[in-house]
Amino acid sequence: MRLVNFERKGERCLGALHGETVVDLSDSGLPNDTIDLIAQWDLAKAEHAVGQGSRMPLAGVRLLAPILPRKNIIAVGRNYRDHAREFSDSGFDASEKQMIPEHPVIFTKAPTAVIGPDESIVLANDPTGTTDYEGEMAVVIGRTARNISPEEALDHVFGWTIVNDVTARELQKRHIQWFVGKSPDTFCPIGPVITTIDELPDIGASWLRTKVNGEVRQEAPISDLIFDVPALIATLSSVMTLEPGDLIATGTGQGVGIGFDPPRYLTAGDLVEISIDGIGTLRNTVS
Amino acid sequence: MRLVNFERKGERCLGALHGETVVDLSDSGLPNDTIDLIAQWDLAKAEHAVGQGSRMPLAGVRLLAPILPRKNIIAVGRNYRDHAREFSDSGFDASEKQMIPEHPVIFTKAPTAVIGPDESIVLANDPTGTTDYEGEMAVVIGRTARNISPEEALDHVFGWTIVNDVTARELQKRHIQWFVGKSPDTFCPIGPVITTIDELPDIGASWLRTKVNGEVRQEAPISDLIFDVPALIATLSSVMTLEPGDLIATGTGQGVGIGFDPPRYLTAGDLVEISIDGIGTLRNTVS
Repeated sequence: MRLVNFERKGERCLGALHGETVVDLSDSGLPNDTIDLIAQWDLAKAEHAVGQGSRMPLAGVRLLAPILPRKNIIAVGRNYRDHAREFSDSGFDASEKQMIPEHPVIFTKAPTAVIGPDESIVLANDPTGTTDYEGEMAVVIGRTARNISPEEALDHVFGWTIVNDVTARELQKRHIQWFVGKSPDTFCPIGPVITTIDELPDIGASWLRTKVNGEVRQEAPISDLIFDVPALIATLSSVMTLEPGDLIATGTGQGVGIGFDPPRYLTAGDLVEISIDGIGTLRNTVS
Repeated sequence: MRLVNFERKGERCLGALHGETVVDLSDSGLPNDTIDLIAQWDLAKAEHAVGQGSRMPLAGVRLLAPILPRKNIIAVGRNYRDHAREFSDSGFDASEKQMIPEHPVIFTKAPTAVIGPDESIVLANDPTGTTDYEGEMAVVIGRTARNISPEEALDHVFGWTIVNDVTARELQKRHIQWFVGKSPDTFCPIGPVITTIDELPDIGASWLRTKVNGEVRQEAPISDLIFDVPALIATLSSVMTLEPGDLIATGTGQGVGIGFDPPRYLTAGDLVEISIDGIGTLRNTVS
């Protein structure tokens, strides 16, 4: 199924996307909070509720981020070979000379940065005027995970979504550690849906594409990840407990704004669209 | 006042430390969760409840971390001059050659790493065997903060606590970004209390001292911070919204294990004690 959150009278409600309709799950007896629903992880019950729920045309519904993270969003840097190269070539990476990392480079984004589909990325939150997009596939953890081997890692995945790991490049560089540059308010669009893993078992077969104002900027098969989903879950869970609802944004492909010479940062009025086969398209305007 | 959390019949309860007694605030009508209490921030009401609550001898009470963070703990690297120098000299810092940072170096620790006073730091959670202590003063944010000037920053501080920013040095180095090395389970002891700012208005006058097995390893005045509390709040809030209950661990002083040659990492059976005047002593064993 494709989980969504939508707004009704100022309230955040749980729903499912079914073609061009949204099924209202807010009165279905399911937990209304996505993280609570994930922790319960009863897809049969959820599917049953989808069959019973009232339907609304998608066109009339305002979708929100499909999950409201409580903890910071975990994110991976330089996890596509071609992007690692362009980032290194840009001279912007203050943290390391080595182009292809031997171990995954992992940082976090503040949950206060999260916005939903069609919301605006606000440039004023980056006083340095170096705001860049990064289209990414994000893993949604479904089950408490500690010391998980790569072989059993996918058993702990609830599903997949899209994250735009929007970045203030100058702040990323200035503060050496990336948290500040990755965390301005509105710099973490998520959505439009969480596709459950039963519906999309092989995420590696999907492609990641980012367009800015209709121009294709990023296009990479997710199978190009240097550290794939099992490797990331194994690495993280070897030291820390992962919990239901945790998000791991797995890294971006070649074609970010800083990769151009001169850099092509986002400007007011831009439209950023990130698509992943089987998940959909996350669209955000820039203001 | 000095807020604590304590355990009763497996439940987390709110209390206040009063000399050698703990005042039970769990049936006082105050929110029982520390973050909810902070969001309400009604000290007069809280003080009244302290006057009414039943008292128990501290010796018979098991204290827990005084706050259970939902988001990641924000933490600052290289924020004391002498420590920045020892860390640079150790050759362990893969991220930057520059010794004294021009801008604060800010990363996060996973909230799953939090433990309370007297709990064990578990060495097995660092497979690289390079577990180090870092005694730190942590700011507890009391009010939603965005675009706060240094002059008004302290109005947004609820109080202060102690954090041991335990670090797996080899993982800190290996993953370039510090999140993994800073986040193994049990690697974020917090406590023993949150001292409210009315009781300790000038944190700069306090000293930070860390002992390992009774030997003084770190001793620095908090006034030695390179980026002080107003500067940190101003920097963070210039791009992101800070929320009640957010924790900012402000950095450690000279004398961490990696600063010795050879390094003096923690070993099983060690006792780490971090003291800050006006807050108390955070004691943790190592196992």
